[in-house]
Order: sequence, then C-alpha cells, then structure tokens
Amino acid sequence: MIKIDKNIKTPVYLQLYNQLKEEIITKQRKAHERLPATRTMAQDYQLSRNTVLNAYQQLESEGFLYSKVGSGFYVEEIPRMVVPQPITKQKPIDEHKKQTYACDFRYGSLEPNVYKSRAFRKALKDALYTLENQSFLHDGEAQGLFSLRKAISQHLKEVRGVHAGPKQIIITNGHQYSLKLLSEYFSPADHDLISEDPGHRDTREVFSKAGFIIHPVRVDENGIVTDELINYTHALAYVTPSHQFPLGAILPIGRRVQLLKWAYETGSYIIEDDYDSELRYKEQPVPALFSLDSRDRVIYLGSFSKSLSPDLRVSYIVLPASISLDDETLLSSSASLLIQLTLQKYIESGEYRKRINQIRNVLRKKHNLILDFIDHHYANRIKVFGIGGGSHFLLQIPTEYKEEEIIDLFHKYDVAVYPTSGYYINPNNQTDPMIMIGYSGISLTELPLCLEKLKTGLDAIIRS
Amino acid sequence: MIKIDKNIKTPVYLQLYNQLKEEIITKQRKAHERLPATRTMAQDYQLSRNTVLNAYQQLESEGFLYSKVGSGFYVEEIPRMVVPQPITKQKPIDEHKKQTYACDFRYGSLEPNVYKSRAFRKALKDALYTLENQSFLHDGEAQGLFSLRKAISQHLKEVRGVHAGPKQIIITNGHQYSLKLLSEYFSPADHDLISEDPGHRDTREVFSKAGFIIHPVRVDENGIVTDELINYTHALAYVTPSHQFPLGAILPIGRRVQLLKWAYETGSYIIEDDYDSELRYKEQPVPALFSLDSRDRVIYLGSFSKSLSPDLRVSYIVLPASISLDDETLLSSSASLLIQLTLQKYIESGEYRKRINQIRNVLRKKHNLILDFIDHHYANRIKVFGIGGGSHFLLQIPTEYKEEEIIDLFHKYDVAVYPTSGYYINPNNQTDPMIMIGYSGISLTELPLCLEKLKTGLDAIIRS
Repeated sequence: MIKIDKNIKTPVYLQLYNQLKEEIITKQRKAHERLPATRTMAQDYQLSRNTVLNAYQQLESEGFLYSKVGSGFYVEEIPRMVVPQPITKQKPIDEHKKQTYACDFRYGSLEPNVYKSRAFRKALKDALYTLENQSFLHDGEAQGLFSLRKAISQHLKEVRGVHAGPKQIIITNGHQYSLKLLSEYFSPADHDLISEDPGHRDTREVFSKAGFIIHPVRVDENGIVTDELINYTHALAYVTPSHQFPLGAILPIGRRVQLLKWAYETGSYIIEDDYDSELRYKEQPVPALFSLDSRDRVIYLGSFSKSLSPDLRVSYIVLPASISLDDETLLSSSASLLIQLTLQKYIESGEYRKRINQIRNVLRKKHNLILDFIDHHYANRIKVFGIGGGSHFLLQIPTEYKEEEIIDLFHKYDVAVYPTSGYYINPNNQTDPMIMIGYSGISLTELPLCLEKLKTGLDAIIRS
Repeated sequence: MIKIDKNIKTPVYLQLYNQLKEEIITKQRKAHERLPATRTMAQDYQLSRNTVLNAYQQLESEGFLYSKVGSGFYVEEIPRMVVPQPITKQKPIDEHKKQTYACDFRYGSLEPNVYKSRAFRKALKDALYTLENQSFLHDGEAQGLFSLRKAISQHLKEVRGVHAGPKQIIITNGHQYSLKLLSEYFSPADHDLISEDPGHRDTREVFSKAGFIIHPVRVDENGIVTDELINYTHALAYVTPSHQFPLGAILPIGRRVQLLKWAYETGSYIIEDDYDSELRYKEQPVPALFSLDSRDRVIYLGSFSKSLSPDLRVSYIVLPASISLDDETLLSSSASLLIQLTLQKYIESGEYRKRINQIRNVLRKKHNLILDFIDHHYANRIKVFGIGGGSHFLLQIPTEYKEEEIIDLFHKYDVAVYPTSGYYINPNNQTDPMIMIGYSGISLTELPLCLEKLKTGLDAIIRS
C-alpha cells in the first residue's frame, strides 16, 4: 500500500519510486504485473501525471519495470535477493591522529613553508590564469607537461651540469613512483639491484617487491666502496653520490670514475639519486654523476620534495638518450596539471633558484648551530655523521641503551629522534647506536630550545 | 699553466678550480703531487688566500685532492678516463606539437572549465591558507588526505548510495593508477580478468601487463550479458553498470543481482567503474552496485576527471571493509596535498554538487541538440548508441568506407571523430562502422557550427 505524504521533505516523486521499488523487491508486486496507468495513479494520490511518469521511468531505467508502447508499465522478473539496507547506525567516524612532539627532528619535512612564499603564490596564480584561458583541457602528456620538462632541463644544465633534453625527462608523482617506473622498465630476470648499505629503505622495498634480488654494498666515510662492485655484472646500482644517504659522504671523483667504468665493463646501469645535492654548506655542489657519463649508463633521479615541499608530490627521472619508457609503463601523466604549470612558472621566473639559496642559508645556520652544540657539550664523545651538507645528522652515542629505548626515552622528553638501524641490510656492527636528527622541519627560532631538550635526553643516556 | 682573468664574468675562485681540475684530469698534475701552499698561490696570482682555499677545498670535497694536516693539499690518484665535455652545440630543442582541429569531438575533455569557477578558486585559496598556516608539512597519508576521504565518503553516501568510511577510500592519481593498484593487490595466479566487450581499453592493458588472462564477455543493449559469466570462477569482473562504456546501457536490476550472485557463488570480485554515473539526463542516476553488495565483493572506482577536470589527476578507490591495501602497495600518497585539500574544501562547501548539476545541464542541452540533429538529417539511417547519459555517442553509419578512412576524411573537414574498434576484443561483426563523438569538450555555442561540419563529413560518406 503506497502512502504519499506531502508534508515531509522527501519529494513525492521519490516517495512513489521508493515504495514501488520496495514492493517489487519484496515480491508484493509480481513479475509481469501491470502497474496502474499513470493517469489512474495520479488521480489516486493527487499527484501530477508527470510525477508518476518520472517515478515509473526511473524504475524502468533501473530495470525494475519494462514498458510496452501504448500499454503501460510492467514489473520485471528479478532474481530473489536480499538487498542490504543502508547502514543506519554508522560506525563512529574513523579517527585519524598522529602523535606530535614539541620538537620533531623528523627527516624530510621542510621549512620555510613554500606556501607562504609570495613568488610561489604568484606562480600558482599565473598557472591558474593559463588554465583558465585554455580552450581545450587535456590530461597532459604521459611523460608530464612538456614546458615543465623544458624548464627542468634548463635548470639541471645550469645547476647540476646535467645536459638532457625535455624528451629525456619524465615527471612522476614522487620519488617512490620514479623507482617503481624503473623497477618496471628493468626486468628482475636480467638485473639484480645493488643497494648502498646503509641506504634508502624505500628503494630496496620497491625493487624487492618487483622481484629483484638485492645485494648490499658497504659504505665507508667516502660513500659506496666501489672496489666491492667487481663481484657483480649486469646490475642496477642505486647510489647517492652527491650526498650518501644516510651517512653523508660525497663520493670522490676517483670512485665516480670507478663506478662508471664498472658499469661500462659489466653492462650495468647506475641509478643516481641526487636527492639534496643543492644543500652544501661549505663547498659548491658537486656536479652530478650523470654529467660524467658518456655511454648512457646513468639514470638520474631528482625531486622537488627537498627543495619545495614533499607534499607537492612531484619528482622526475632523467633518462639517458638511449632509454625511453613506453606509454604503457608510464600510464597517464602522474601529476596534476595545475601543480606542473605552477612549478614551470616558478622555475622560469628564477624564484626556484632563489628559494634553493634561501633554504641553503637557513639550513646552513641550523647545521652550524647543532654542530656547535654537540661540540660544546659532547666533543669527542658523540660522533657526528653528515657534516657539510643535507638536512640531517647521524649521532653516534656512547651509551648502554638500545636504539628503541633511546627513541622511547626521547619521546618522554617531548622530542622525536629517529632510528637508523632500518637503513642497514647487514646489521650495523658498531657497538654504539646511531640516531638520526633531521633539522629541516624545526625553525631556526625553535632550534635552541629543541637543542636544550635534546641535551636533557642525551645527558640521561650517555655513558659517563 | 693557470691563467686568472679578473675581467671576465666567471668568479676567480671558479677559474682556479676549473683549471686545477683540468690539470688533474689530464694528468698534468700527477697523483700525490703537492699543490703550492695557499699563501704562495695567492701571491702568485694576486688572489686572497681564502679564494685559493675555497678552490682547494671544493676540489678536496669532490675527491680531486686530499689534505694532510699542517702539510697542505695533494693530488688524488684518479683512474684515467675520458670525461665528456658539456655538449656545446645543443640539439635543437625538442618540439612538441599536437594536431588540433576546429571541432574536436574527443571523449574525455571537459567544459565548462573548472579553473574559471569562482568556487573552485575559493577552495584553492582556502587550501593555500590552510597549508600556509600549518607548522608541520608532511607528505600525507599513504591512502590520501584523511579529510578528503571523509568528504568523499559523505558525498558518496548522499549521491551514490555508497556507505563506506574514509578508511575504505584510497586517493589515487588517476583512473589508470587505481587499476594498477588493484592489479597489484590481486594476483594473476588466483584470478583472471573479465572485461566487457566492447569495453575500456586501459583496463585490459593494465591488467594484461600485470600478467592477467583477459576474458571478454559480450555486451548487449542492456549492458554486460551476465548469463555468460557462468563459465568463470574466481575472476575479477570489470564492469560499468551505471553507464556501459562505450555502448551506454544502464545495467538493469535483474542483471545486477545476477552479477552479485555470480560473484558470491564463484569467489569472484566485481570492479565497478562508476566513471560518469552523475550524468543522466532523463532519470536520476542509478544507485551504485556497491550499495547492493552485502558480502564485500564489490570494489568501487570513482574519479574527478569527468566532473571537474581530467588534468587534476585525482581518482579514488572504495574498498569493501574486508580488503585493505598495505602501504607497500600504496607507496606514498599519490596526489599533491594542495589539490587534495582544494577538493576537500570544494566538496564540503556544497559547490561540487552544484558543479555536477551545472555540467549535467550543459551536457543535457548538447545531448539533445545532437540527437535532434541526427534525427532531423539521418533518421532511420544512422543508429545512435549512448542516449540518455554520459558525454559521448556512438554513431553507426551505413557506408562503404572503413573506420580509418572515415577518421581521415573527417580530419580533412577539420573535424576530429574517433574510432571504436579498439574497444572490442572480439572484432565487431556489425558490417557498418561505428564512430565515437564526445561532446564534453565542445562548448554549447560552438556546437551548432561543429554539427554543420559533421554533416558535411557524414554526407560525404553515407550510403545513399
């Protein structure tokens, strides 16, 4: 029995539709039964004929009714089935909380905030203007916006000594995605992956998930120990020559040459992760390995995560001229056109280079402040890795505490410091634990206070 | 022999560095040779000692020199190698041109331009404000911004009858990426993929690249022929029930129930692509298949490509409660935080729903205009598929020309129409070719003129 209530909020059309549907599902109206004519139904319930027709047609389009010309609407035969009711008592809405600390020495966050930058906002506005006046929107080229690739190509030539045309550049939505594309281009049947040890965890995860065998190669105070590469042929070597992650070395020219020679002689490829090469505080950045390669064996990975913001989700790959990824591997372009255009305009305006200098200046001050602090309080006791560049230090602390105990203890002082054992494939044999402190997320003004807090923690654990 | 020229633009420090480096590479300075003391060098070339020290230290940090305390700088032993010179005569900058047509009936482009929308710009501004005042930037959760997922959850409940909490939602950077994640979650060893025939090409490509066997299942005027599913068990069925792509049917309730029963009985999963469900011009949108599923067998795919703009690169997956993707599969969150925040604010403000209505109104007018045009000029000659919804038609044309000839011929009239044979796995047995015309990228004002152009082409090929 259908009831129409004109005083409730639900439109009458919908009331009729819902109740008829219910009657069909529950078999109160049998298959092939003829529904009342729209005129009759309209009179019975004091509705307009159009309202009834709308409800009937909606039910027809969903397959609950069928119609015969000149004869009206009939109930469809529908397999019996329990249709779930909309959940009325919803589970309490999912909570999402993140533990926060007064001082978070997390690696990878970035300060100063790029969104406060007038130049960035101007670039965004310009990008919006371009998109607004574009008559034809498209989802972009699979490799990424051509004009952004052109801007990156120019930037890399000026700043990193990398000579590569826009066709060699692929825009990706983050470093992990760059790695993933490479793990799909190369086959685990043909190549193993060589990973610096300690080194980037993500890289190992992505490649190992794709079926690659991972071989660790030791890192000493000069970076990856290239002598140990002779054991491998036809490999992919993932390296961080400009700034070894996480230990901080710059790979000397001798080892660079050795690395390239090894690749040439053994049919191997080098994946050069140039993640924070701009951040040198004493010397100038060292030119990229890519710029030394004469035989198309180096693949270069760059990113805006360390120079602008990780949440932009834009990184890029520079391929040697002889390699190209097909569109099937690339899928569609992976970054929002608005963001790509903004970056293009930001780079072209010269503001990107200014921003890098600005970041470098701020980070240099923090770098020096922390070094002075360690030197003042813990000279010859705490060993510091990563001096001279980047945005993090590793502190090797003489203590009886284990790494996870140290992390927990610092949390009690409202300070987050980070473990390093996860970066190692072969367990770190050094007796004293190392913790990581990133300094890009803490502002220069907060840093002195945070160092005081750090001191309280360090004093509590350090062997006297 | 070192030459310092104070009248050229290159800083003297760099001149010294470059020339020393050159001498070391070319072995004019031998390994372990001691360099002149900084004081001597400074006097010889009338430089400051600091300038010399900077050049030396840079060379040291790059591994060309080593230093001994109190004794000075020495040349490192470097393996002999030809270091490539920076390419001076650059190749002409890569060109990137796209063929354009006066009337491009491309499927998937979108008009009206979202970037012109005041509400979208306001949402972007609000998002920027939020990011600007956020003390701690991060790269977001792997599943995507929680608050955006919450907004999508709410929207889907209201508009698509889909009840799913934010934890079931994953933000991806586009439809293909959604498919890729699913192709990685499911294993080709356990499941084959069932594809509508004709159906989405991308889906087949992504899954077949991941090693899945693809089985075509026929589509008739009501959508996928569910009777033919009985041949398969433990499969993944990729379907477009709200609006079959490309033929345009709405899957009737009877077949929906049959589809679910089949999944329940055979241990199969259904991937429901709800790509343009909002775009219905006569009836209301049909509730999603996901809303009928009581046993966690339907995975729902949604996107902002058809409602906002494909170049935003934001889509999403709604998983049944019993499925979750691990962070290793997800990698990092795949969309720029700025874009995610903008979408969240845009949806929350209610403007997203307004926009959908606006698009629907515009598309409805175009839809009707084109139908009237065909009806007026080609009634009973050209068969039209896709009436009642979406943003494209398929036109079946009685002609002696082949599909590719038709496309080429239209290009000569400055009109782009598109082939459909690529959507078929089994060749289309129909003798008359079908072409696709999308109408979302042509504005309402341009459409009449474009239909005139279309007519010229049609008249030239149609069998009289």
